[in-house]
Amino acid sequence: MEPFALDAVLARVRAALERDDLTSAVEIIESLRPADQADVFAELDDEDQVSLLPELNPADSADILEELDDEEAAELVSSLPTEAVIRIVDEMEPDEAADLLGDIDPDQAQAVLAGMEDADEVRPLLLHPDDSAGGLMTSEFLALRPRMTAAEAIQAIRDWKPEAESVYYLFVVDAHRRLCGVVSLRHLIVADPDTPIGQIMDPEVISVQVGTDQEECARLMSRYDLLALPVVDANGVLLGIVTIDDVVDVLEQEATEDIQRLGGAQPLDRSYLDTSVFSIFRKRIGWLLILFITESLTGSVLRFFEDELKAVVALSFFVPLLIGTGGNAGSQTTSTIIRALAIGDIDLGDAIRSLWHELRVGLLLGLGMAAFAFIRALTWGSTPDLALTVALAIMAIVIWANGLGSVLPLLAARFRIDPAIVSGPVMSTLVDATGLFIYFSIAGAILGL
Amino acid sequence: MEPFALDAVLARVRAALERDDLTSAVEIIESLRPADQADVFAELDDEDQVSLLPELNPADSADILEELDDEEAAELVSSLPTEAVIRIVDEMEPDEAADLLGDIDPDQAQAVLAGMEDADEVRPLLLHPDDSAGGLMTSEFLALRPRMTAAEAIQAIRDWKPEAESVYYLFVVDAHRRLCGVVSLRHLIVADPDTPIGQIMDPEVISVQVGTDQEECARLMSRYDLLALPVVDANGVLLGIVTIDDVVDVLEQEATEDIQRLGGAQPLDRSYLDTSVFSIFRKRIGWLLILFITESLTGSVLRFFEDELKAVVALSFFVPLLIGTGGNAGSQTTSTIIRALAIGDIDLGDAIRSLWHELRVGLLLGLGMAAFAFIRALTWGSTPDLALTVALAIMAIVIWANGLGSVLPLLAARFRIDPAIVSGPVMSTLVDATGLFIYFSIAGAILGL
Repeated sequence: MEPFALDAVLARVRAALERDDLTSAVEIIESLRPADQADVFAELDDEDQVSLLPELNPADSADILEELDDEEAAELVSSLPTEAVIRIVDEMEPDEAADLLGDIDPDQAQAVLAGMEDADEVRPLLLHPDDSAGGLMTSEFLALRPRMTAAEAIQAIRDWKPEAESVYYLFVVDAHRRLCGVVSLRHLIVADPDTPIGQIMDPEVISVQVGTDQEECARLMSRYDLLALPVVDANGVLLGIVTIDDVVDVLEQEATEDIQRLGGAQPLDRSYLDTSVFSIFRKRIGWLLILFITESLTGSVLRFFEDELKAVVALSFFVPLLIGTGGNAGSQTTSTIIRALAIGDIDLGDAIRSLWHELRVGLLLGLGMAAFAFIRALTWGSTPDLALTVALAIMAIVIWANGLGSVLPLLAARFRIDPAIVSGPVMSTLVDATGLFIYFSIAGAILGL
Repeated sequence: MEPFALDAVLARVRAALERDDLTSAVEIIESLRPADQADVFAELDDEDQVSLLPELNPADSADILEELDDEEAAELVSSLPTEAVIRIVDEMEPDEAADLLGDIDPDQAQAVLAGMEDADEVRPLLLHPDDSAGGLMTSEFLALRPRMTAAEAIQAIRDWKPEAESVYYLFVVDAHRRLCGVVSLRHLIVADPDTPIGQIMDPEVISVQVGTDQEECARLMSRYDLLALPVVDANGVLLGIVTIDDVVDVLEQEATEDIQRLGGAQPLDRSYLDTSVFSIFRKRIGWLLILFITESLTGSVLRFFEDELKAVVALSFFVPLLIGTGGNAGSQTTSTIIRALAIGDIDLGDAIRSLWHELRVGLLLGLGMAAFAFIRALTWGSTPDLALTVALAIMAIVIWANGLGSVLPLLAARFRIDPAIVSGPVMSTLVDATGLFIYFSIAGAILGL
């Protein structure tokens, strides 16, 4: 397969737009796959987007809106006439349509809903937060009944002519529309045509409540290799289905957010180069300032031990080394623990085990670094006493950093704060001040200051 | 659905094993889902694992081996009699079987292959690296021909009785077994029974070469919402199929590796609590030492500017603040850029755009931090000259850190090194020494030292 050449296609679309040849531009875009259409589209100027979108086949426009970042799609839709928006949104998958309507001006959303044919499929989805099972699910599904035969079920699928991928698992409901089983399309096809669904379905179906967090949905589908996950209300009534393609997006998005948080910034809302310089600034300045204020503590610790510093000036040469190593050890620990929490390797119940694990790792790392630091200090011409101070301090700081790095993310999770808030920069800053305190205390004891 | 209660189930299995009641232990485990079976199994002692696995239904044993971490599975298999291994591996999916055989002792692998019924499906997969399309694909697939009718195709699926999820996309090959189209099971069912496959298939099928990296496969499937991706050789001959459940695992694994690298450690090979303290130590000590040595530069810079430090002692109070802020700004940038690279938001061609983006973000952040630092310095009782020095230094350091944080990951990618190697700790350490140099140079100019 030829890889998609964004720049070449973009140049052709732009050339067509420049000579006001909207038809050619539409033709080029309609020949692409949805993800590629959206990439080309996102690069165009706002005015071109507004004039082009209503000209495209509504199904293609719907695909493009689904693939664009949420904010971009909402902005674009605000500039379009309501007529055009109705035509396009009617072609979107119900879950995506609900997300979009939730992001735009409520008055426009009402007007669009009033004009839509499929409004009844979308309305119930508007009640659920975007990042819950209810916000992620599609209400477009076919529910089977246990007494149907396999042949009848297949006929029902034919009559339904499903647009969506949600057809590969079929869910079975009782007379009260309560979920009671699942059968895969594969089993349905292979089964004897006269077998009742009740006999081939698996009654042990994995489902989630409508308010379940999207990350939990993704974890379940990944863990049990599911292509579709049914969503039920408190009475077990089937409300919708979460499909694997949505979950792949959730997994990517959650990992992206964690990585950006671990770097000490708030996550971006859209893709990197599409985010304005000022937005990125706003996502980062808050943490930089908080960490700056916290880091001021280090200055206070230094002033507190001013006499020791004046007595043995060489103590100061080791400050960046010691606090740097402590911060690094803390970052190593915290990133491991946060990821283990995110993928379910550990949970809150493993707090003590994780701490014990990290304290032992810290002891080994501390011993290794101490030996190295001792030699380094001697070769820098330090006295054996000072070298011993540096070695003991680095060992204590590394153990302390590992302990802190394992406890803090779990504490955050305990209080329902995203553990990724305990980023590398947060760890470095915390370890800086406390590490200096450890260093000068040990120096005071050994060097008799 | 009840969440799976690992501890309760584990207690029951352990109790059964304690009273040598292997039958009950087997019954409990066989009643669980594969992912849960593996979780329970992984917690048992090695001897219990070795005695229990051959007693389980071979299909369940195969599921457990598939779900265990690669290393754990290989260790376990090495302790089992070859007879038992053959029975189990014959039940595994060919791609998983190949991964396992690649991880164990070559002699044992040969003996197992010699005894297997399905050896022919596994042998070709052994040729491909684990992390390539060839290592990820399954060779268990049904290829259709363009002249078959929809009804014949459905009959072929019935006769084949597929075990796997790979049935939802059916790939079409020509007389030379070259890939020429794809048809989804959904379309096949909905189509008129007499339609030839050639008419309902999509000839624009997305495929990858057998050597394609698994991350690229995951990116394609996620981008184009594919449930299956066909793998071809250089002549376009269909060799196998990568399914979405494997790709979900790849996406999780790659994000985990990136996060662990960004924390300044080498990625772990298995889940966190299953990794021994000593293994974690080995994955972390290397980077800690490298960073320690690099950080020694900071000491050298401090000594180089010893006269300036002695002339204005207050300069030293701001050192942790300045290098801390620089390291934090660098971590923010590098984690954003590395993630954007990983999910394809940017590529090497965007290097200049990214640098320009980050320099402007750095300018804004630098101006903000400079204003803050200026006031902070004055309230700490610094002279206006010193406050100005600190403010200008923090601005220069933040811009420098942002530039470095955007350029280094792209440079690494350019030389085919994993960009995640430019972790937060690496950034902090690099910015520490260079930031001090900037600080003292500005101090020299302004304070006339």
